[in-house]
This record gives sequence, structure tokens and C-alpha cells, in this order.
Amino acid sequence: MSEVYTARRQRLRERCDAVGSTSALVSRPANVRYLAGAAPQGSVLLLGRREDLLVCSGPREDRPVDGRPDDALRLHLLPGSGGDPAVAAAGLAAAQGGDTLAIEEHHLTVARYRAIGSVAPGLRLTELGGAVEQLRVVKDEEEISFLRTGAEIADQALGELLESILVGRTERHLALELERRLVDHGADGPAFPTSVATGPHSGRRGHRPTDRRVEEGDFLTVCMGAAYRGYRCEIGRTFVIGTSPADWQIELYDLVFAAQRAGRESLVPGAAYRDVDRAARQVLGAAGYSEGLPVLTGHGVGLEIDEDPQLAPAAMGKLDACVPVTVEPGVHLPGRGGVRIDDTLVVRPEADGGPELLTITTKELLAL
Amino acid sequence: MSEVYTARRQRLRERCDAVGSTSALVSRPANVRYLAGAAPQGSVLLLGRREDLLVCSGPREDRPVDGRPDDALRLHLLPGSGGDPAVAAAGLAAAQGGDTLAIEEHHLTVARYRAIGSVAPGLRLTELGGAVEQLRVVKDEEEISFLRTGAEIADQALGELLESILVGRTERHLALELERRLVDHGADGPAFPTSVATGPHSGRRGHRPTDRRVEEGDFLTVCMGAAYRGYRCEIGRTFVIGTSPADWQIELYDLVFAAQRAGRESLVPGAAYRDVDRAARQVLGAAGYSEGLPVLTGHGVGLEIDEDPQLAPAAMGKLDACVPVTVEPGVHLPGRGGVRIDDTLVVRPEADGGPELLTITTKELLAL
Repeated sequence: MSEVYTARRQRLRERCDAVGSTSALVSRPANVRYLAGAAPQGSVLLLGRREDLLVCSGPREDRPVDGRPDDALRLHLLPGSGGDPAVAAAGLAAAQGGDTLAIEEHHLTVARYRAIGSVAPGLRLTELGGAVEQLRVVKDEEEISFLRTGAEIADQALGELLESILVGRTERHLALELERRLVDHGADGPAFPTSVATGPHSGRRGHRPTDRRVEEGDFLTVCMGAAYRGYRCEIGRTFVIGTSPADWQIELYDLVFAAQRAGRESLVPGAAYRDVDRAARQVLGAAGYSEGLPVLTGHGVGLEIDEDPQLAPAAMGKLDACVPVTVEPGVHLPGRGGVRIDDTLVVRPEADGGPELLTITTKELLAL
Repeated sequence: MSEVYTARRQRLRERCDAVGSTSALVSRPANVRYLAGAAPQGSVLLLGRREDLLVCSGPREDRPVDGRPDDALRLHLLPGSGGDPAVAAAGLAAAQGGDTLAIEEHHLTVARYRAIGSVAPGLRLTELGGAVEQLRVVKDEEEISFLRTGAEIADQALGELLESILVGRTERHLALELERRLVDHGADGPAFPTSVATGPHSGRRGHRPTDRRVEEGDFLTVCMGAAYRGYRCEIGRTFVIGTSPADWQIELYDLVFAAQRAGRESLVPGAAYRDVDRAARQVLGAAGYSEGLPVLTGHGVGLEIDEDPQLAPAAMGKLDACVPVTVEPGVHLPGRGGVRIDDTLVVRPEADGGPELLTITTKELLAL
């Protein structure tokens, strides 16, 4: 595994060289993990002029660690509660003879920035920007295999829930049960807080489970995912409770399904992010739903549940192969409820069979 | 309730006036919630020269909200995915005729800081520092009542777990069951990820549950808490699995118990933070445990699980009445396990009966 991390750091170093920076300070946890194999709480990664260091604070005891730090990377432990690793790393960068330090301005706070300036006044601070986030967009096959396993776990957990009796149970309980099942099946934990939305709540993005109970005739929207070896996937489905859905439910479901399919089918290497969004959005718009739609149709997933790219109207850029994204359009009618359908897929060339669907739970409208 | 938030904002405004700032931008979510009643995702609070505004981005649909925004506070919604609320708020501050804007440098990123500078070049940016965090240290009786309810819920959940069979179950499952019980009893959710540590893991601060199963003869350490109306408490207990604890287990338990009691008994208004830490730490030190101890003996709790004050060797400051803190010393012996005992208490004057213990589960060494 170590070669993977070394290669990733090498690619970042090339970016730094290109902008004339002798060293870089990576502080955003998912970026640290991507480059170092693990991100102990509060740790930062220094790409130094002579050596790379994972700088951690506090005794090991207090630092929960996900993943395992790359063996090829030296750990620099600050003594006791010995201050801010970012500030210490800047001092170490200067000690290695670096004259510039590229920092993640979108993550580092103003206070830490000032402290770095005081500790290493000779260092010129430049902007690393989203360089690591950009490296993270295209996944290797191992990363994709972790996402695939996570998706299998989520499918299993959801499948088991559907076999149980749902009427009368609260959103909160269903969400907790799903999270327990994720862990039962080997997930590190939920990829994000599980959303269970019933009746008038259904179809809302990011709905937080309440004490509302499932009732006959409800739409039930579940959105969940598993974290597996740090990688986070997402699946969302909407069901009907009871024997036969109402006409408006069938119509709305078919519409969102058509929009989601249009989005999925537009996932080809070279497609503009905004065109994927438009493909789904215009299906909904043609049916009269253009107000109040979610601001995006989907997003990248990986070490974070919401990462680049954004599949949204104003997004710039084009899809590459091996980019995993969600496609998750939805419509919510205030007071009545709605539908969301959400898959995680990996962009693949047509020659390889087109987009790879990771979340394979059926998208038929099930009446439970 | 609205008067509470108005009064809090008024106190912050007085601090701003004292340092000559006409307006303030609060971006740290717990601080926003404290002053506004709720902190929709990504929202910021502007204390403006003429009017206070809660500035939120994105459509309502996408913003999970804990709490309820103060009715006396005007919501300013950015259109669609209309940019960064912090940057928009700075523009609004300038539009209200403010000439200085105090910002939370310990929370605001360098990138947002620069964007504010571009959008409102006429605003002088000053440092709000930890002003809101300082206001949050002393709680009112309603805040304490939320913590008390949260502690009752945690006690109930833990009590129920102790009545069940534990041998053979994994740390992960026990943690999930505890979290389910917290919600059953009315918690918003866990106050922080529940830690269950068995055998060699026991006694470790912040241990993340693994697939290790509970065995006869193990120490079992549980550390958990409930969030209730946004307020987060903490309880930690260590048990022995089986009929009779080993001598080393009894000795270690008694020692940590003595240290924890010493810490609790030193919680009086006017006591220095570091003296509370020393009270507990010196009991452990006298028995030969001074290496590898946690960096702190306890910390404040409230809207965040870890807030000011820090009860640690280098902490500056003194306790006030109505400050809720944890007292949580522990000893972990690598390869063998250890003991942690953790309570949430509210500092009260002796005339009122001394520290109020919120987490009342017994601290006898139970053999389960």
C-alpha cells in the first residue's frame, strides 16, 4: 500500500513545484488521509523540502485513528498538549530550508494562519488551493472496490429493513435500525446521518428523522450509506406504504425515476457536469417542477460523502472515467411529501459497459 | 425564549462596543445557535449596526435545522446556491453603514477572510476572538435543565444495558444499542460517538468501538452521553465482567475512583482550572502513574461536548458557579486495559450544597 501514498504525494509535489512552492502543508483531514493513509485527529501532513512528516499533537491515547498511517512516512509527535500541529509543521518546513509553504486557505483558519506567520516569519505562504481535492476526484480501482463494498453493505441493510414491518415505527427508529444493520454487515459506520422521511417529510433532501410514525398510504424516503475503509457511498429510495399507491404517487414517482435515469444515462467520460444536471433537471422542469428543486443533481463521493465534482447548473468541468458520483434528483411537495431516488455510480467508458451502478437495490416503486 | 437570545446578543454587542467594533460576524455553528436559537447548516449571524440578521444559503429544503431560530431575528436567505453566507453578511454589514466587522479568526478560513476583504473592502476586520465561547461558559438554569435531562437519559440507557447479557457481544454492538436506547428515551441523539472498550482497550479515552467481544474477566469501559435540546453531557463508567474482579483490577479501580473523587471535590467557585486537574492528577501520580495520562482531567460541556474551560495542567482561569464540567481521569495499561470514571457536574457554591452531580449512575465497581 505504501507505494500508493508515495505516488500520491509525488503528484502533489509536482503541482507544488509547478507553482514554485518548496513545501506544502495539508490540513484538511480527508486530504491528510488520502496522502498519508490515516489522519489522526488534528494531524497535518507536511510535504517538506527534504522529508515528508505526519505531524500529530497529544499523546497517542487521545487520538482516534481511522486507517493506518503509511509506513514510509515519519510521524512527528508533539509532546503532551504541545500546541497546534499546523504551526509546528510550518516551523519544521522552515527548518528543512523551505522558503515557501503552500497552505489550504479553504481549510486553515485565520488564527492558525497568523500563528504560522509568527512562528516562521521567513516562510512565504502561498495557496495550495484545492490541489489535493482535485487529485482525489479520479479514483483508483482499490478506492472503487471500497465504495463497491460499501454499496453492497447499504443494499443489504436496506433490503433487510424492507422485509420488516414498518407501519407504526418512527423515523428515528428506522434510521437507527438501518445504521445498526450497516455495522452488522461490516461497515465502519454510516457514511452520513441516515435520513428516513415519512409522509409529508418524504422526498426532502437531508431530512433529519423525527418521531413521526410510518402510516398507511405514506411515501417513505430512505437515504443512507455505508463507510467502508474510509470510503462513503450513498443510496436513496422512496417506497409506498400500503397495498396500492395513489395516482399522484405513481405519477410523481415515474417522473423522478425518469429524471434520475436521464441523469444516469448522461454519465459518460467527457460529459460536462452541468449537462448531467440539466439532463435530470429538464425532465422535472418539463413536468412543471422547476421551483424548489435541490440545488444539485449529484456530487462526487469518496473519503467524504460530498466531494468534487458538483453536478449542478453552474458547475464547470467535465467527467472523467473512474469518477464515482451520485445521481439523486427529487421532488418534494410541501405538506404532501415527495420522491427522491439516489444512486452511486462510477463513470466508465461505453466500451467498458458505461456507468457502473454500485447501489443495486431495485428502483421499482415498491408497496410495502 | 426570544428575550434570552436578545439578551445574549446584547451582551456580545457590549463586548464589541468595548473594542470599538460596529458589527460582528459569528460563524462558528455552536456560537450561532447560542445567539440565534438555531444554526441552519452554513448559516452565520450578523450583529449589524442597525439590525441583526441570520444569513443562510441555499433553499430551505437542503438545510437541516437543529433548534428554532429566534423569532425576533430576521432571516436573510441567499437565493439558490447563492454563495457564502459569511461573505454575504459582510456585504450586509457594510450596507448597514458599519465600518468595522469583528470576525471569529479561530473559525473563519483564510479563503473566506480574503473573500470578505474583496466584497467589502471598506470594512476594517477585527478579531472577535473567543468572545461568544466566553459568554457560553456560565450556563443559565434552563441550559442546566437541558443538561440534567440529557444526563438522566444517559443514566437510563446505561442502566438498561447493565441488565442485559454482555459476554460475547462486540464493542460496536453495545455502542449501537446504547445509542438506540438514548433515542428511545428522548435524546436528540448521542452527544458524541459512544465509546465501548473491552479488555485491553478499556480505560482508553476516545476509544472507537471494534469487533472485539466482551470476555469473562474483562474490564469494560463505556463513555457516552445524550444530546438534549442541543446540550451535550457525558458519563463514563468501568465495570468488570464476571463474578469477581482480580486484585489488580480492584486496586486500579480504587485508585482512579479516588482521583476522580478528588477532582469532583475540588469543584468550587473560585477554584483554578489547573488545581482541579492537579487534585485528580496527583492521586494518580502518587501511585506511580504520571506517564501516559490524558492531557486533561475534564472540560466544559454545553452546546458542544468539549468546550471551555479545560481542566488541564496549563489552563488559566477560575471556575464560576453554574459552569458544567466533566471530571474524567483514567489510567490505561497498554496490553492490559484500564479504568476511566467520568461524570458531568455543575459547579455550585457550598451554600447550595456544592457541585451538582448530573450523572448519577453508581460508581461502585460492579461485576456484571
